[in-house]
Amino acid sequence: MNIQAAIEALQAADIDVDLNAASVKSKSRDFFWYSPVLKDRLDHVVADFVATPQTEAQVIDILRTCYAHDVPVTTRGTGTGNYGQAMPLAGGCVLHLHKMNAVKEIAPGRVVVEPGCLLKDLDAACIADSGQEVRMFSSTWATATIGGFIAGGSGGVGSVRWGALRDPGNIIRLRVVTMEEEPRVLDISGDDLHRVSHAYGTNGIITEIEIPLAPAYDWIGVFVAFDSFDEALQYSYDLASCDGILIKLATVFEAPIAKDYFQRIAPHVTQGDALVALMVAPHGMPGWETFTAGYAARPIYRSDKSDWRKDPGHVFEYGWNHTTLRALKVDPSITYLQIAYGTDDPVALARKMRDELSPECLQHIEVMRQNGRIAMAGLTLVKFQSEARLDEIIALHEANGAMNFNPHRYTLEEGGRQAVDARQLDFKREADPKGLLNPGKMISWDDPDYSFDQMYAWPGLQAKPAAE
Amino acid sequence: MNIQAAIEALQAADIDVDLNAASVKSKSRDFFWYSPVLKDRLDHVVADFVATPQTEAQVIDILRTCYAHDVPVTTRGTGTGNYGQAMPLAGGCVLHLHKMNAVKEIAPGRVVVEPGCLLKDLDAACIADSGQEVRMFSSTWATATIGGFIAGGSGGVGSVRWGALRDPGNIIRLRVVTMEEEPRVLDISGDDLHRVSHAYGTNGIITEIEIPLAPAYDWIGVFVAFDSFDEALQYSYDLASCDGILIKLATVFEAPIAKDYFQRIAPHVTQGDALVALMVAPHGMPGWETFTAGYAARPIYRSDKSDWRKDPGHVFEYGWNHTTLRALKVDPSITYLQIAYGTDDPVALARKMRDELSPECLQHIEVMRQNGRIAMAGLTLVKFQSEARLDEIIALHEANGAMNFNPHRYTLEEGGRQAVDARQLDFKREADPKGLLNPGKMISWDDPDYSFDQMYAWPGLQAKPAAE
Repeated sequence: MNIQAAIEALQAADIDVDLNAASVKSKSRDFFWYSPVLKDRLDHVVADFVATPQTEAQVIDILRTCYAHDVPVTTRGTGTGNYGQAMPLAGGCVLHLHKMNAVKEIAPGRVVVEPGCLLKDLDAACIADSGQEVRMFSSTWATATIGGFIAGGSGGVGSVRWGALRDPGNIIRLRVVTMEEEPRVLDISGDDLHRVSHAYGTNGIITEIEIPLAPAYDWIGVFVAFDSFDEALQYSYDLASCDGILIKLATVFEAPIAKDYFQRIAPHVTQGDALVALMVAPHGMPGWETFTAGYAARPIYRSDKSDWRKDPGHVFEYGWNHTTLRALKVDPSITYLQIAYGTDDPVALARKMRDELSPECLQHIEVMRQNGRIAMAGLTLVKFQSEARLDEIIALHEANGAMNFNPHRYTLEEGGRQAVDARQLDFKREADPKGLLNPGKMISWDDPDYSFDQMYAWPGLQAKPAAE
Repeated sequence: MNIQAAIEALQAADIDVDLNAASVKSKSRDFFWYSPVLKDRLDHVVADFVATPQTEAQVIDILRTCYAHDVPVTTRGTGTGNYGQAMPLAGGCVLHLHKMNAVKEIAPGRVVVEPGCLLKDLDAACIADSGQEVRMFSSTWATATIGGFIAGGSGGVGSVRWGALRDPGNIIRLRVVTMEEEPRVLDISGDDLHRVSHAYGTNGIITEIEIPLAPAYDWIGVFVAFDSFDEALQYSYDLASCDGILIKLATVFEAPIAKDYFQRIAPHVTQGDALVALMVAPHGMPGWETFTAGYAARPIYRSDKSDWRKDPGHVFEYGWNHTTLRALKVDPSITYLQIAYGTDDPVALARKMRDELSPECLQHIEVMRQNGRIAMAGLTLVKFQSEARLDEIIALHEANGAMNFNPHRYTLEEGGRQAVDARQLDFKREADPKGLLNPGKMISWDDPDYSFDQMYAWPGLQAKPAAE
């Protein structure tokens, strides 16, 4: 690794290179601190410099130069991911894509965009052009980039209608630059998309994204209170099952999440209230009203007719990863899990886990579609005690048939299905032969026989400073 | 019943009244002849006159007048329904709504329209206004009215995405005029919609419709051939399960339907080919291509890249009730069933019925959504032998757990769940106290204790002319 030579070559090529220590440190961090486990492991990690390309040609220059000088390259958008995916474990170069943010083409049902575009700006452009918006986005919509969402996300607001990002049809095409002596530019579509989407930039740098669009509506944000968590859960499942009522979000919060962690909602709920957060299309509201009347449900807020003194803001900023964020701000000992309750009988499975673990764990559930059926994902809040107890809790979920996608790990495999993804690995062999892209994030590259019996500790991880 | 007095009163009120025998006869008929059973029963039925209102005020005039003179009123759009729902069983007045066809308001996600508007014209208006279209329509889109579809349909092209018309959210509001001494105008929404939608105009006349809209795309029509019916069926089920691939139609035809009954497709398939017809959004085509490559599927046509010498026309005009129509034109002995294979394991149930009944019955299956799951509806082609054999075939389906919606009956109950719909009946008591609206179509009005053990024969049905 010859950092200095790389920096000089990049500066000579008129690439924006940031060497300011404070700035480099800040751009070397994402939201990994959601996890006390990752915070313990990664808090000291820092890059040597940050390179900010303006064009695909500059991305190619940077990769060619870093390849020549054996400098690791870790790509980031705005760093709002929370699995450490943008943390430069071995130092080197952070490739900051936020200035590659052009919306290049908008057509009926699809958009072509550069990776650094904020989700919020992308929606604004699509709405202005033709009343369209992205099918799904993370709750960090206001600050996150589309590239970061594609490279690190799995689904989000909109998945209750459209399923997950990995489902066929939800990404049309990705343009990727490889990390080779002479980088190649590849357009990837179809099954090959699995090689590079949700790969944390370990096997190519995404420089252009083509995704489908949905019609943009003035979504009505809704909160509905329930005396009973079970009723809230069933209500949300049944509502999502109404194919004719168009919704974009259905989130369930066990009590007392709303009372304890949602400051602007707290005055309107009791300690015992379970809460459901919804986004409903305006023309779906009459159907929603009819549907809701059939449940022991108390609608307490709708964004089009609110008398709340303090505006709660976007309803989706209570769901997905924002739930944990809000809880963390009130109680820093809170962390979370990522659980898949599946499609067979997710209501029963979620109830069972709640019965076994509440209140140490509080259920926060996102309703999704999966393979044509309603599924539930648990972003369960956990009162953190120790890593050992966290592992016990996860094991208990697995023993009950609830799948775990561990957010306390920085590798693709551990955050996923704890198995080698041959497509991603094969493509890394082809596109990153020196293993310089986001090193340490793909176990199968470093240790193909890893047993997954404990947390993977990448040997190349920067050592902690001795006297910190 | 004082026909002459009613006619004179209507003429005095400047209502368009048609008395021409040939014209009245033609407007007294719908597509009831799809069914040999209905053809036998209803072929002679004819109204006394046809009244054609231009406005809701004229509808009120007509109903007030007919009420005063005890004249039955049977409403029709363009008469493309095929359950005899627009057949004036007791003569009297046919209320022809085709001139009430204004599109009154288009907003994001919804439209307000008069009942006589053709589905085709409604779509054209919504596309021109804002790139929108109706969520679902009958295969008679080019010639049928939205009012007829709402009053007599259950679903159609688009139901693979949006479910059935009766599902919450798929109708927003219906405006209805009652048949009383002084007719009332009622706006009906929510659960009350079940009173008047799919009621054949037996308990009120729909004068205004508010329904949701979806984004309009240049849907790609696709035909895919398969060696195996089972593979075609599984493919269609799995494709509809892809929440991220936007489709509007998925129809399966057992061999040799395509070869024998679809003239312009026949040159491109063999006698043994099963066929799947699809409508795919343009931006869904890459996902569709990827998905399709995983099956033993032979795409033989796509409307955006066709080299067929003869254009097959709209793909949806091969599905839903058009399948039977095309088969009937080739073989007049063909009729059909309406079977619900449900959501539990519709693929297995449809296969089973095929194994038991092919080739006397040929499977034509429409894939739908129902309560958040994929469902299959069979519009099974039947080589008609006798009414007794038809009943046997239906009983065989029911014995296997496949629900029958009998299209060889002219009553709401027999074409539905063979049970009294209390909401429709109660509303008829309120809105049509004399029982003058489309008489003979609601068994529970005439014979509340009917046992459904044989075909209902309404005592008020016009007698057949002796010497016909």
